[in-house]
Amino acid sequence: MKALYFDGSKPVYLEDYEKPVPTPGHSLIRVLLSAICNTDREVIAGYRPDFRGVLGHEFVGVVEASDDVNLIGRRVVGELNEGCGECLYCRTGREKHCLTRKVIGMEGLDGTFEEYFVLANHLIHPVPDELPTEQAIYVEPLAAALEIPNQLHIKPEDNVAVIGDGRLALMIAQVVSLTGADLTVIGRHPEKWDYFKKAAKTKTEKDLGDETFEIVIDATGSPSGIELAKNIVRKKGTIVIKSTYAGTTNIDLSYFVVNEITIMGSRCGPFPPALTLLDKGLVNLPPIELWDVKDYDKAFSSRAFKVGFDFR
Amino acid sequence: MKALYFDGSKPVYLEDYEKPVPTPGHSLIRVLLSAICNTDREVIAGYRPDFRGVLGHEFVGVVEASDDVNLIGRRVVGELNEGCGECLYCRTGREKHCLTRKVIGMEGLDGTFEEYFVLANHLIHPVPDELPTEQAIYVEPLAAALEIPNQLHIKPEDNVAVIGDGRLALMIAQVVSLTGADLTVIGRHPEKWDYFKKAAKTKTEKDLGDETFEIVIDATGSPSGIELAKNIVRKKGTIVIKSTYAGTTNIDLSYFVVNEITIMGSRCGPFPPALTLLDKGLVNLPPIELWDVKDYDKAFSSRAFKVGFDFR
Repeated sequence: MKALYFDGSKPVYLEDYEKPVPTPGHSLIRVLLSAICNTDREVIAGYRPDFRGVLGHEFVGVVEASDDVNLIGRRVVGELNEGCGECLYCRTGREKHCLTRKVIGMEGLDGTFEEYFVLANHLIHPVPDELPTEQAIYVEPLAAALEIPNQLHIKPEDNVAVIGDGRLALMIAQVVSLTGADLTVIGRHPEKWDYFKKAAKTKTEKDLGDETFEIVIDATGSPSGIELAKNIVRKKGTIVIKSTYAGTTNIDLSYFVVNEITIMGSRCGPFPPALTLLDKGLVNLPPIELWDVKDYDKAFSSRAFKVGFDFR
Repeated sequence: MKALYFDGSKPVYLEDYEKPVPTPGHSLIRVLLSAICNTDREVIAGYRPDFRGVLGHEFVGVVEASDDVNLIGRRVVGELNEGCGECLYCRTGREKHCLTRKVIGMEGLDGTFEEYFVLANHLIHPVPDELPTEQAIYVEPLAAALEIPNQLHIKPEDNVAVIGDGRLALMIAQVVSLTGADLTVIGRHPEKWDYFKKAAKTKTEKDLGDETFEIVIDATGSPSGIELAKNIVRKKGTIVIKSTYAGTTNIDLSYFVVNEITIMGSRCGPFPPALTLLDKGLVNLPPIELWDVKDYDKAFSSRAFKVGFDFR
């Protein structure tokens, strides 16, 4: 079958990759769509130096075989992180933080840039019938955005800034917009701002003047985000960091103490509310641009807002 | 009158400092006791290079004159930070974060190491009659400890570590102990651990083994605190930083994002619950060692747990 395999230095397109066989408690999923996430680019760039396997983790598929009969034939999405099931983190609802977890497309498990892959049953979520596959493909990044209100109470009275105007920033803006909070997206790419029009005000850093915010969400993916966040967050406010990047950052911790600022790291999030919001039509996302997986180089270099592979 | 004045480089004992006159909305307070806080040492060490005036901010006194008749004759404690009353922070319950605030003993206002000083009426809190002055002197640092549960929900089921075994750590341990949470104090001074006996388990860093904690509170006052906190906090846990120190700290922000750790700065806190806890006898604090203010050099070099000046 077709697969996009990471050999430790680059992606390699294979036509004869072996179709997997599900182990107990796992399902065989036929991939319909699979989307490229920034993390896939990071894996290729060396973020997970020990990983060898099929890339990808954002998908919509159909369960072809499973020991959970309720899943067979269902159109589904699924979570990335499979924990050991026994440690402190697995026993306290923090499976994604399991110290010996496996992660599809990143750590110990083949990903979703292939025709079939295997996923643990408890990580699989059926997609509502009415929800188009091209929308359901957004569940994983939307869940990551929903991790923010899952961790932090955003009040309708708050004023919130999102730093960044990329894909993740758009998910976050859509989610925060639903709280009723006054929302500003601070970006550098006015050509993308049409996507944000209904959800938020859009501004460049320069346009901000002396505005400050109770909550600042860094979705830039670069160390510049925390610096700007520090400058615009109010005393006793909160900075949520969604960005991960290599290397350490020099910060003046005393500033955060004296001004009682909270810094909150935030990562993957809950799938069920992401499916619910999409199903209710409360989130508006641009169409995904689709490629055949053999054209992966064109897909990875595309400037479209969201890009993926069509296996249908 | 007697006063301990900071001349920009060192404390100077004066016998003829002029007795102040209260302005409208302010009270004249006769000091009974005033205690030394680490911040006083930091001011002397250069933390507030522009400050010239009387040092000190922890006190118990009696209101001698006021335009609030309900205060006259009352034994009182009081808060440090006097805001402008009009800015965003003053209007939203964050007076201590007012950008143009004055702070007794630190910024623009004489402090409490003198026989009489002046404080804004709204910062003054009467002391319950039954509460001894020697206990009420602890209200300000205890309030700083209470800022932690004021910011963060500490659940009875949580396990909590306090790093540091000094004065602030003892206040924090007393307060956290009341939640019922499993509490460990990690320190380097076993000779002080008797004070902590009822509130917490006490351990050295070495004794910890591979223990981890949902909540870690850094009360070390040094950059080493955040490093240890990072190593022992659980994924999705919270680090509260009470330490302030000069200079920047190099931290791996991505670690906090990937592991969804929250870092929370925490400073001064609410006086009324501190008075309540002391009045109910729920907090056990060692006796304060008292000196005449003219012996300030002996007081500052004392190794006693809590040291202050007696103006009675």
